[in-house]
Amino acid sequence: MRSLLVRLLSSTSSGPRSSISRLSHILSIRQVQAPMAASEESLRKALADMQAAVDSRGNAVRALKAAKASKPEIDAAIDALNHLKLEKLSIEKELQAAVSGGDGSAVTREAFRQAVVNTLERRLFYIPSFKIYRGVAGLYDYGPPGCAVKANVLSFWRQHFVLEENMLEVDCPCVTPEVVLKASGHVDKFTDLMVKDLKTGTCYRADHLLKDFCNEKLQKDLTISAEKASEFKLVLATLDDLSAEELGAKIKEYGIVSPDTKNPLSDPYPFNLMFQTSIGPSGTIPGFMRPETAQGIFVNFKDLYYYNGNRLPFAAAQIGQAFRNEISPRQGLLRVREFTLAEIEHFVDPEDKSHPKFGEVSHLEFLMFPREQQMSGQSATKTCLGEAVAKGTVNNETLGYFIGRVYLFLTRLGIDKGRLRFRQHLANEMAHYAADCWDAEIECSYGWIECVGIADRSAYDLHAHTEKSGVALVAAEKFAQPREVEKLVITPIKKEIGLAFKGSQKMVVEALEAMTEEEAMKMKSSLESKGEDEFLVCTLGKTVTIKDGMVKISKEKKKEHQRVFTPSVIEPSFGIGRIIYCLYEHSFYKRPSKDGDEQLNVFSFPPLVAPIKCTVFPLIQKPEYEAVAQHISKLLTAAGVSHIIDMSGNTIGKRYARTDELGVPFAITADSQTDVTIRERDSKDQVRITISEVASIVKDLTEEQKTWADIWSAYPHHTSTNGEDNEE
Amino acid sequence: MRSLLVRLLSSTSSGPRSSISRLSHILSIRQVQAPMAASEESLRKALADMQAAVDSRGNAVRALKAAKASKPEIDAAIDALNHLKLEKLSIEKELQAAVSGGDGSAVTREAFRQAVVNTLERRLFYIPSFKIYRGVAGLYDYGPPGCAVKANVLSFWRQHFVLEENMLEVDCPCVTPEVVLKASGHVDKFTDLMVKDLKTGTCYRADHLLKDFCNEKLQKDLTISAEKASEFKLVLATLDDLSAEELGAKIKEYGIVSPDTKNPLSDPYPFNLMFQTSIGPSGTIPGFMRPETAQGIFVNFKDLYYYNGNRLPFAAAQIGQAFRNEISPRQGLLRVREFTLAEIEHFVDPEDKSHPKFGEVSHLEFLMFPREQQMSGQSATKTCLGEAVAKGTVNNETLGYFIGRVYLFLTRLGIDKGRLRFRQHLANEMAHYAADCWDAEIECSYGWIECVGIADRSAYDLHAHTEKSGVALVAAEKFAQPREVEKLVITPIKKEIGLAFKGSQKMVVEALEAMTEEEAMKMKSSLESKGEDEFLVCTLGKTVTIKDGMVKISKEKKKEHQRVFTPSVIEPSFGIGRIIYCLYEHSFYKRPSKDGDEQLNVFSFPPLVAPIKCTVFPLIQKPEYEAVAQHISKLLTAAGVSHIIDMSGNTIGKRYARTDELGVPFAITADSQTDVTIRERDSKDQVRITISEVASIVKDLTEEQKTWADIWSAYPHHTSTNGEDNEE
Repeated sequence: MRSLLVRLLSSTSSGPRSSISRLSHILSIRQVQAPMAASEESLRKALADMQAAVDSRGNAVRALKAAKASKPEIDAAIDALNHLKLEKLSIEKELQAAVSGGDGSAVTREAFRQAVVNTLERRLFYIPSFKIYRGVAGLYDYGPPGCAVKANVLSFWRQHFVLEENMLEVDCPCVTPEVVLKASGHVDKFTDLMVKDLKTGTCYRADHLLKDFCNEKLQKDLTISAEKASEFKLVLATLDDLSAEELGAKIKEYGIVSPDTKNPLSDPYPFNLMFQTSIGPSGTIPGFMRPETAQGIFVNFKDLYYYNGNRLPFAAAQIGQAFRNEISPRQGLLRVREFTLAEIEHFVDPEDKSHPKFGEVSHLEFLMFPREQQMSGQSATKTCLGEAVAKGTVNNETLGYFIGRVYLFLTRLGIDKGRLRFRQHLANEMAHYAADCWDAEIECSYGWIECVGIADRSAYDLHAHTEKSGVALVAAEKFAQPREVEKLVITPIKKEIGLAFKGSQKMVVEALEAMTEEEAMKMKSSLESKGEDEFLVCTLGKTVTIKDGMVKISKEKKKEHQRVFTPSVIEPSFGIGRIIYCLYEHSFYKRPSKDGDEQLNVFSFPPLVAPIKCTVFPLIQKPEYEAVAQHISKLLTAAGVSHIIDMSGNTIGKRYARTDELGVPFAITADSQTDVTIRERDSKDQVRITISEVASIVKDLTEEQKTWADIWSAYPHHTSTNGEDNEE
Repeated sequence: MRSLLVRLLSSTSSGPRSSISRLSHILSIRQVQAPMAASEESLRKALADMQAAVDSRGNAVRALKAAKASKPEIDAAIDALNHLKLEKLSIEKELQAAVSGGDGSAVTREAFRQAVVNTLERRLFYIPSFKIYRGVAGLYDYGPPGCAVKANVLSFWRQHFVLEENMLEVDCPCVTPEVVLKASGHVDKFTDLMVKDLKTGTCYRADHLLKDFCNEKLQKDLTISAEKASEFKLVLATLDDLSAEELGAKIKEYGIVSPDTKNPLSDPYPFNLMFQTSIGPSGTIPGFMRPETAQGIFVNFKDLYYYNGNRLPFAAAQIGQAFRNEISPRQGLLRVREFTLAEIEHFVDPEDKSHPKFGEVSHLEFLMFPREQQMSGQSATKTCLGEAVAKGTVNNETLGYFIGRVYLFLTRLGIDKGRLRFRQHLANEMAHYAADCWDAEIECSYGWIECVGIADRSAYDLHAHTEKSGVALVAAEKFAQPREVEKLVITPIKKEIGLAFKGSQKMVVEALEAMTEEEAMKMKSSLESKGEDEFLVCTLGKTVTIKDGMVKISKEKKKEHQRVFTPSVIEPSFGIGRIIYCLYEHSFYKRPSKDGDEQLNVFSFPPLVAPIKCTVFPLIQKPEYEAVAQHISKLLTAAGVSHIIDMSGNTIGKRYARTDELGVPFAITADSQTDVTIRERDSKDQVRITISEVASIVKDLTEEQKTWADIWSAYPHHTSTNGEDNEE
């Protein structure tokens, strides 16, 4: 009905967290915001007009009746009224469709998600944690297939990033003393705004309540004016920019009350999202469960730099649990209280952010969404990465290189290219120190979800820890030959200044020492020509007269052997659970069973990700076939291919359906002593292969050394002859 | 000097934790306890006698001097005294050697550990966490090589246990609500006894102070009597059995004070070792960081059983972080506040603990240390696993199977078979519900360390969660055909009993219902013959008369379709950090450099474990060699072999030494355009191989498809011709 245009305006992740804007903070779920589309606006107006017409025609009918007009006259008026009502109903329907995303797609999305989630829960991809104790919101277990998918994703991450780039992987504890998170800013600023039900004490996220209210109004209340609708949309778009006071004012203005009890709410106040604990028995060392893994890398910078032979650039990496005590977790696996992060900190000379391997990814083309396009209401467009860096859209080559590598990583896992975009942070979203920041966003039934943040954080983190710890986290560039540099030397003569300015001596000395080169050279020439100079001392709030002899100003030549600097850090940070959830949605489809009486679920995981690579089953329950199946299982184990045997007496069709639902890519059916069939999950095609070859072929397929097409073209095709091996 | 006989008597891990005796609780470091060896005892006596002789001879000399005896007479007496003093010194030395473990081995052990730890810290195998903030006791980071070793160990664990046995792996959160750990017993019983310095408030583990005091006395104070020495040894042996009162009494008796300030100490009191936190914003849901991963599996039993097709046996597994807020962590990487556990819960029918694959491990022979041998003061002896199970030394086949699999796992990693033993828990070490329990203990410089606990925990955990949650965690054995069973039915007639016993009605009813079959049938016949029966009601403390009509007793035939029961669980639980630390010690050795002027460090990791599989370097800094090295690096990356290139201008010898210290098993030197040398770390042997073959050969070697002996016999040997490629 209308294009679901995505506009993000100045939304999300600014406000209290802007100065520590990192993936783990800002993994807030971006709303699919629709600007007030023309059709919606005109429909709202048309609806208001129609309501007025209905009202007036209703009054007319009542007037006719009161005047005891003739029956045909009254009937005609009622007919006209009914006709108007029908028209109004049709406009309402149209408007309803418009606000809910066109042709019922919101409903479709919801139904699709329910189908995915049902399958995931039923097959134990995940389990609400501590279910027998009625669970805890925001905590989930990975069950056997989910755990295998996660292990595969992490193993590929380690291969694709750590091994391929020779990164220095570290593994730091989750328990973190307060001082570290004080330095990083988390103790003071890692907060969400919360309101409390004034009677029951139940807590809610203030922005969630406001968001729900606006969405509810926009989607369900067709009577609001176009102006009011615009206002709600503006609130939604700027939600994350609102201060506690502004949020509180809006909540009051709209009369928002506690959703469960309808009680009044407190004013919003900040709640720190870290799980607090205490280290050691004395209770005197406060600690937190880390909200991200990055800090463990930063505090080790000095050792890691040394380990790398005191050379830049290098990258350190860490995979581990992070914790976030959400106020009221929602959206299932996307917003949880404990999650696995995989983070890379690539340290680089701020004066040289080129990357030697950028050429390997510069040809890639994918959806990019620079801030200009967002501001002007356009959509993401397919862009060549090399051009984006060349044009300066992406700040530098290293940032660009990681964007490219993240694209390759996600698509190799099976993320749909058409539903993956790289969105640049808007100016007000970024921390003040950040040079540039792009999020890999994946579209799923919840909208576009930030799954990877790729930020150039400049020298912020190393600076912060240097300052707090007193340990210099710096790098040095040794010069091949010492460089001669001219250095300004300002030497205030304290005795003279003390005599002249007494108690103000210190302020004057400091002000002199703080002069810029230009100021100092101007003073030097004044002192030389006039013997004195007028000089503004800001800390005194007045101008003083500096006389010759009070300060020596000169330029001296010095030899420098190295340049010491704080490295910049470029940080790709991966929310593993979110990537996996999106992967589930992108991999899920339904197809009819052979007799068409039911819809079967399939996860089309690539072999790399599939929790189990292969199923083995005897065609029927016969000892000789079972022995063959056992024999093949041993061969697969020896080849290191994860698999399961299904000896149940179910029909082949049922057994195929069961493994399709787990996303197992290949199934081997044992039906002779010499050769077997291998069936590919998505095409349902089957080939015949001798038993001696089967393990190595499945291994090649699962390690993606060979494709199914290779096998299909090289081996005899199998077609069912007796119905027994029909799959459905 | 004397055999370092190991006796464990009734030591360790009983007391407050006995009812939840699990690896994560009981990973206490077992002391190498020496019983009072004959030589030590006689030496202490000889020393006391000698001291008495010296004293008396000294008095004699003084008497002679006082009596102004002749000089030759006095000189002779002094000579005799000096002779006695020398003899005493020699006995002291002998005793010193005896108590410190023979010929200075304590010193040697300490020096060896220091050499290992220095290398580990210098090469960043581990780093004290948050070092720039002066660290936190008991928290360590794994640096790059340590992290790679850990990833390799975990990956092999997953291969060896989860994949090979088709276990159901799960991944549960660390944050755990209180109710779960209340049910498991941790909230009430997961404690250590603590004392406080009464002035400074510093906390100490009470048993540690007592242990240190006794050890100090035994090792440094040669004047204590043999009786006193025996007493201290008994205290050490029974340390973990002491109650808070007994510990406090000993501390008072020995006058033990605060080790740092010499201030008096408080009485011992229990301190819960879990890190506490609060879940959600309201502060009303108390939670803890899990002290073990096992509970996450137990609470999911129902879903996992269903996932396994409602069939037993099956095993679930989990790898993850666990937390333990140690009072005062010591012993480096062995006792830490956060650690990685890998745990298996194998659920089995308590009536059938056979294992179909036991035959695959029954032939294994290794050091076993059953409780009888410990009690009688013998050492561990090499035992055939199959015999140990057949004789009943090991309780059942499944427990035996896991002992065998653990042995294979540890030795494949590189743990020295001669320093690995399986020690059975003594009766008082085990929880009351446990059927049997064996620890895999590895000997290192700290003594014998529990690294894996393998326990048959019967139905304890599932029972506990069933009771607390109200959800039945049970399994059912479906009968092929319904079985007819005779069931005793006891129906007290409450009205009659109420009339007869009034206020005691409830107690009488309960006692009747609790009768055994034998008791009930006796009463039935009494009632039938005499019309009444005398019946002891324990809760009333007296005998009452039950009359005919007060209770109906009958045997009824029922058809049962299944047997419902709570499964037993057999739990192998691995302390990954401890295994890795022991592996470091077992793999470490020193060898002289070629010119003999320094000792070089080597870690002899098997390829499976080695953090990096291969180093590549050009023989000298020449563009054509460097190009070859780069080419080989690409081939290795494509083959998935983790490696590093060393392009530094260091000598080959230095470069070899650097990678030996990281335990890199193979080094490739590029010195021609067609072929290269591969050098094996431990033998330092080299062969020549063409560039096209090199990646696949290194891959085969590192995946242990081929041994170095295979390569050595198949390829031309390389001997240095020009000194340049001499390695040292």
